[in-house]
Parts: sequence; structure tokens; C-alpha cells
Amino acid sequence: MKIKKEADFSSWYDEVLQEAELVDIRYGVKGFIIYRPNIMRIINQVYELYDKELEKTDHSPCQFPVVIPLSYFKKESVHVKGFEDEVFWVTKAGSHELEEPMILRPTSETAIYPMYSLWIRTYRDLPIKYYQTGSVYRYETRATRPLLRGREFLWIETHNVYSSIEDAREQVKQDMNIAKEVLYEKCGIPFLMLDRPEWDRFAGAQRTYGFDTLLPDGKAIQIVTTHLLGDNFSKVFDIQFEDKDGTKKLGQQTCCGPGISRIAASVICIHGDDYGLVLPFDMAPVQVVIVPIVFKGEEKLVMEKCTDIKRTIEQSGIRVKLDERDMSAGAKFYYWELMGTPIRVEIGPKEVQNHSVTIFRRDNRSRESFEDKNAVVTILRIASSVLSSLRKNAEDYVNKNTRNAKTKEELLSNAEKGGFVKFNFCGKEECADEIKSGTGGIEVRGTLFGSDEKPKGKCAWCGKAATEVAYAAKSY
Amino acid sequence: MKIKKEADFSSWYDEVLQEAELVDIRYGVKGFIIYRPNIMRIINQVYELYDKELEKTDHSPCQFPVVIPLSYFKKESVHVKGFEDEVFWVTKAGSHELEEPMILRPTSETAIYPMYSLWIRTYRDLPIKYYQTGSVYRYETRATRPLLRGREFLWIETHNVYSSIEDAREQVKQDMNIAKEVLYEKCGIPFLMLDRPEWDRFAGAQRTYGFDTLLPDGKAIQIVTTHLLGDNFSKVFDIQFEDKDGTKKLGQQTCCGPGISRIAASVICIHGDDYGLVLPFDMAPVQVVIVPIVFKGEEKLVMEKCTDIKRTIEQSGIRVKLDERDMSAGAKFYYWELMGTPIRVEIGPKEVQNHSVTIFRRDNRSRESFEDKNAVVTILRIASSVLSSLRKNAEDYVNKNTRNAKTKEELLSNAEKGGFVKFNFCGKEECADEIKSGTGGIEVRGTLFGSDEKPKGKCAWCGKAATEVAYAAKSY
Repeated sequence: MKIKKEADFSSWYDEVLQEAELVDIRYGVKGFIIYRPNIMRIINQVYELYDKELEKTDHSPCQFPVVIPLSYFKKESVHVKGFEDEVFWVTKAGSHELEEPMILRPTSETAIYPMYSLWIRTYRDLPIKYYQTGSVYRYETRATRPLLRGREFLWIETHNVYSSIEDAREQVKQDMNIAKEVLYEKCGIPFLMLDRPEWDRFAGAQRTYGFDTLLPDGKAIQIVTTHLLGDNFSKVFDIQFEDKDGTKKLGQQTCCGPGISRIAASVICIHGDDYGLVLPFDMAPVQVVIVPIVFKGEEKLVMEKCTDIKRTIEQSGIRVKLDERDMSAGAKFYYWELMGTPIRVEIGPKEVQNHSVTIFRRDNRSRESFEDKNAVVTILRIASSVLSSLRKNAEDYVNKNTRNAKTKEELLSNAEKGGFVKFNFCGKEECADEIKSGTGGIEVRGTLFGSDEKPKGKCAWCGKAATEVAYAAKSY
Repeated sequence: MKIKKEADFSSWYDEVLQEAELVDIRYGVKGFIIYRPNIMRIINQVYELYDKELEKTDHSPCQFPVVIPLSYFKKESVHVKGFEDEVFWVTKAGSHELEEPMILRPTSETAIYPMYSLWIRTYRDLPIKYYQTGSVYRYETRATRPLLRGREFLWIETHNVYSSIEDAREQVKQDMNIAKEVLYEKCGIPFLMLDRPEWDRFAGAQRTYGFDTLLPDGKAIQIVTTHLLGDNFSKVFDIQFEDKDGTKKLGQQTCCGPGISRIAASVICIHGDDYGLVLPFDMAPVQVVIVPIVFKGEEKLVMEKCTDIKRTIEQSGIRVKLDERDMSAGAKFYYWELMGTPIRVEIGPKEVQNHSVTIFRRDNRSRESFEDKNAVVTILRIASSVLSSLRKNAEDYVNKNTRNAKTKEELLSNAEKGGFVKFNFCGKEECADEIKSGTGGIEVRGTLFGSDEKPKGKCAWCGKAATEVAYAAKSY
């Protein structure tokens, strides 16, 4: 790594993507990238973490087609309006035109809900909680950026149906808890869950909640989004059920989309440093790497000890790798630091003699010696300490970069500094537009979900009566 | 289940797909189906089994775009000819025509190999062994059948590059061993690996090997295929490397495609019976279900014992579920038999009193009592016995339905019976065509890979000199 993260975050990001062989952006279609093995293994870990939480909360996996026929897509008029400019069209098969054109799914509501209409008959069929894993396609007109904004991106989408709006609202809370468990508890990524303003809602949703974190350039990025659809879609897709009392009612729906590429990108951007990636233990494809330090004549004992320790670590369920490649220990150190492997165990003649292991932790790059019989306990303790430390740094960054603005002047100067600006807001779209153009681009991202933040006095920008405490930021 | 498998296999298959809620075929685009949770969980197990073997053999995961630009697709002329009639075209984005049309990948050679050309420089970069998981798209003109033949199907594709053709040939053997490990050892599905005749090779391959099994209607189905590409693609995609001696050489390639939907379908078709699915232990989403048999007043002890046993089984790493739903034990039995859950543990007051568990095995529907302290060992023993028994039945079926034909008359009468017909063959495409039309549809599927079967005398059909021992069958 040549570029310092502090000095030039954007170039640092490009460099780490290339040096760590994460993605290739030279594919022949703009906005479509190649996920190379080093990022794919990280992404697979994120999927696994998310799937586990979804299964725990009674979501079931399913898979719907990637193509959506025009007749399905155009049913919900607000939805089609929101997406029609950014869909890819499949119009031909072999040498002939299709009778009905199809779109590549930009999201799957209009693919899934016609089927829900067939599957749901009575209250006994509810709730339905399904999730689907895969790619979606959006013809982005904004500048694309690998993993952060692409025309094909990896995500999960959940689609739930309840018999009451109260249950649907509870699902929104569950979506938050799931995100917290994965993002905050496992990946060390803090986020604000923001109730998006009306004009920024998902096309067809009653409410949209965005889960925003801050990247090191002070720009917000939405990494998960959840929508309270209510009966907007169930009306047009005829998702009805017979309730206990015999009456017909409309299903109450929610859907949630964790952006898996973006979660991986956030971890890279937020925790990474001048030596490359820094991965939290749970999402690291290789959690512990063992590097033998060999000198002529002492290889055998060292390698034996490496193999022993590897077996012990493996038996405790940790993903461990013994690096036996024919290259210098220094080159191996460099490689595994670049890859972000949280813990490195170094074993040489000294460790053999002293019944010890030398443990290097990637986050603060410190090195310490421990009794080898305590290797696993020590590793797990350090793993937890690495995670807390990464999380704390990330949290400190968000806190430090969330600034109050009481006046227009403060709004302007805080917008300049980056991060979130928190201010009393009138709640009007026109005012949000003015703020955006007047501040060089900060957008009103919404109000904090579940908080009791009450506005006092006037809108910091326009001076009209404030109706809410809003958060604004430049964003990806 | 109403339809008997023996009486009407095709209708039985439709019924089991519907009754077990595996797929829905009512989606608005022909040949595209919905994978419901019950099949998705099975498919995820198959993916996991396959991924594990791929990782063990040093394959790395990657993900390439679903769209392939025309300029990439048309590079290999034999390949484009083989696929151009069956690709879907993406021609528009938003409201405007794309400058360069793109296809939905029918397979990913032409997406991946331009990148291999960029990544491979010297012999040190080889071998490359990558795999990708996901769906591919083919505009099938033949009749589609859920999971067996669709326009969107789930698979894995591996794409390997070696520095020598010998290494590439070794990869073909490894592909066979991987398939054997998953299909035969874990899923109990026997197969013949057949070296496909020249006219039936993958477009652009030097050799194609199909892994065929037999469904209960006597028709062969290819569930995995592996191709020795040699330097056919590396020539046109410029995949060169500098060898140890400094000379430039072309990469030698292989690719392999396990059809995950088809593997799941084969397990359903081959092992299933008149009560529904019958799943081998390793691929069952729920391996053991515990059904409490409750009588008034004795619920507490029974439920306590169920919970205890569940914990014990779970701790041994088995996927176990305690069915606490509010419905009769009989209805639960029916449900879990339909789902194919290999082992059911029944616990009632009698079992509490006798310190026993009653174990029902799904394959032969037998029920036996065991000491409860031996529950896990007994379950694992029965699991292994279920697998051997399923595999043996499947193998017996293939053996019984592989018939020799020495003469045209025998070819005709054995073709009538279904299954494979094995015969001395002249190796000519014209003769294969005549066999197909003359026998009502059996196709020459190839010669047995790695066998030393030598033809004797004349071609059973045309009477010309035989050059090989061929296998023919009607097929999916």
C-alpha cells in the first residue's frame, strides 16, 4: 500500500481494492464489476451472518426469477414510476422479439407479490416471512463506485406479510435488531436508523427507514433499508386473507434490503488502514493465520508445533490457516496484513523452546507472547478485544462527526465539515432542496427512529416552525 | 399423496412438487419457476455439500456479471453458434437502446475468460481454479419441466486454467471424484460418466463428459457436465502465460457445471416414494424431527424429555427440530414423511417410563425402540443405513436397466424397455441419428469414461465395423 488513508481516502480505497485483489473493474459493461475470491469469501461470511439472524427470526429462504414481466411490473403505479427509468429490459430471445418484454429485477416486490396473492388464503397462512439472496439490477445514472454503487449489486431482500399493521410495525423493529446484531455486534459498524422524509421513500412504501453509516470521507451511506408497505401493494396485488371473524382483509407488508456489497465495502472503508484491510473476527474468511518462522536445521520442530497449534485452534471451530508457502516470513506478514486477517500466530525456534506463541493483532499491530497451552483462550479474548476496539473507533468517528446546527450559519459551516448535521427542521421538501443546493450537497436523511428528539423553535434553515429534528449529510 | 409413483411417475412428480410445496409453476414467464422454502433449503444443502468439496480441492469462489456484452460473446465462433438461438437479449436500459446489446449468461466462459487473460501472466499464476454459484439463462425450445429443464436454472460453474493439458486432464478426473463424493457418497445417486460423442459436445470443447443418472421412467438425465476445453478458448481470449523456460504458452482449460436444481430433482425422483420425499441424511434440511406424543396430564414429563433429547442431538451437530405445533401427532407424522425427513423420534409417556425413544426411519418406514441414552449413536447408525439402502436401491435400478444389445432387434427391444442400452457402435453421427429415429428416441450418450470396454465385431445397428462400446438412452 502506497497511499495513506487519511491523506486521500478515495485513492486509498481504489488501491486497497486492487492490491488485495478484491474486485476488477475492467469488465466490458459499465457499472458491472467482478467479485474476486478475496472479496467473495468476505461477502460469503456477511451472507452467513445475516442468514443466521434471518433464520433465527423465522424467515425462510426462497428464490424468485430474475426477470419480471411488464404486466407484473406496471401494476403498482407509484412503484413503476420510481423505477422505470432505471431498469434493464429483456426484449429478445434467440432471434425473435418477446411478446411481452421483461425487466431485470431492480427489487422483487412485483415478482413476489402476485404469488403471495395465490398462497395466502386465511389468517392461518400468516405471517409469511421469506427472504431471497442474490443480485439486483439498476441502470444507475449517477457515478458508479465498486461495491458502493453498481448497476448489479448483491443483497438480500425479505418480504413479510402480516395480518395487522401493528405486527408489520413490529417487523420494522425486528429488522433493526437483526441489522444491529450483524452490523454493530459482529462487524463493528455503527449506524443511525433514519425515518426517511416522504420524498425519499421507496416507491410504494408508507414509510422507509434507512440504516446509514459514515465513511471516512464524512459521507453517509445507506447499508440496509426497511420499508413499511402497509397495504399499498396488497391492494393492487390482491393479497387478501380471511380473518378469524370471517371477514376479508388486506395483508400488511414490510420488506427489508440489507446491501451485502455495501456492508462489505463499509467494513473495508471504516476499519481499513494504511496496511490494508482490517477485518473483525466474525466476518474474516481466515480468522487466524499461523506463520512459521523457520531457520535452517530447526524446521522440523517449528513445523510440528505449527501443525499441533493449528489442530488445536481448528478443533475449537476457528477458521485457521497455516501458511506453508515458499516465501519469506516478512512477505507473508505483509500479505496477511493486507488481507486484514485479525490474528496472526508466529511460531519459531524461540516459541518452541519457551512453550509459547507470539500473537500479532492486526488492528493495532501489536505483538505479544503467550503460553502456548492458552492459545485458543487468548485468541478468543483478543478477537473480542479487536472487535470492541474497531467498533469503538467507528462509533467515536460517527459521534464526533454528528454536529448540531442551530442556525443557518452553523448548518453551512457544519455541512462543510462533513458527517451528519443535526438540526431543527420544518419538514418541507422545498426547504430540503434549498439546503442541498445552499450547502453544496447535504441531503435531509430523516429523523432518528424510536428516539424522542423533539424540535424546539424554528427551522435552522428557513426559520419557519420546526416540526422535527432532522439529520442531513452528503451521501453515496 | 394420492398418486402412486410406480403407476404414474410423471403425475407423481407433479403431485409431490405441489404437496410438499417445493415449487410454483404459475409465474408469468414460461419456463421460470419459483423455488419455495422447502426446496430452497434442500438446494442450499446441496450447494453446501458441493462447495465443501470444491474448497477442499482448492477452488475459490468468485462472481461475474449476469450480463455478457455482445463483443465478448461472439469471440469464440463455435461457442456463439451453439448458444445464439437460446440466449435472452438485454437491449434497453431505462428508455433508451443500449449501444451494445448484452445477453443473459447461458454459461460464463465468455464473461470470465477475458478477465483470465488479464490476470494470468506467468506460470506462477497457475493453476487458476475458480467457481461461481448462481443462475444461468437459456431460452429452451424443448418442453420445460420444473427443476429438470427450465429457462433459468441454478448451478455452479468451475473454470480452471492449467499450464499443461495433462494437468487439465487430471482436473477432469477430479471433477469426477468431486461428483462422486457429493452425488454418490452423500446423496446416494449413482451415475455413469460418459464421454459424449463429438456431435454432442459443449460448443467450444475438445471433450465433454456428461454425468448421467436414470430417473424412474427409465430416462437418462445429465446432472453434472465437465468439459476439457484445451486451448480452444485460450486461443481466442488470449490466455497466455510465460512458462519457466521463458516461452509464451496458451493456458489449458477445463470447466465443470454441476446442475444443482437437477441434483435436487434427481434425489426427489429417485428416492421419493408414495408418501413423499425421502432425503438422505446429509442433504436433509431437518435431519431428525422429534414428535411428542402427548396425553392429558402427562405433557410435562414428555415435553421435558423431548427438550432434553433435542439438546443432546443438537450438541452432536445434527440438524434437529422439535415439532411443538398444535396439531395431532398423526398429522405431524404425515407432514414430516411428506418432507422426507430421514429420522423421526417419537416420545410419549411410554418412552418416558422406559427410558427409551421410538425411532422411525423414513426410507423403509420401520419403527423401533432404543435406549434413550444411546439416541445419538443410534441415529447416526440409522442415518448411515438409510443412505446405504437408498444408494443400493438406486444402483440396483441403474444396473437392472442397463441392457446389452448385440443386434438391431435387441437394440429395438431394449430401447423399448427404457434405461441404458449398451452396444457395439460404429461411432458415426448418421448411425446415431438413425438409431434415434428408428428406436423412438434413444440417443447415443457416449462411452464410459476410464473404462477399458472394447468393442467386438460390428455395430449393432448398422453392421459396419464397431469402434466403441456406446451407451444410449432416452433423455431429459
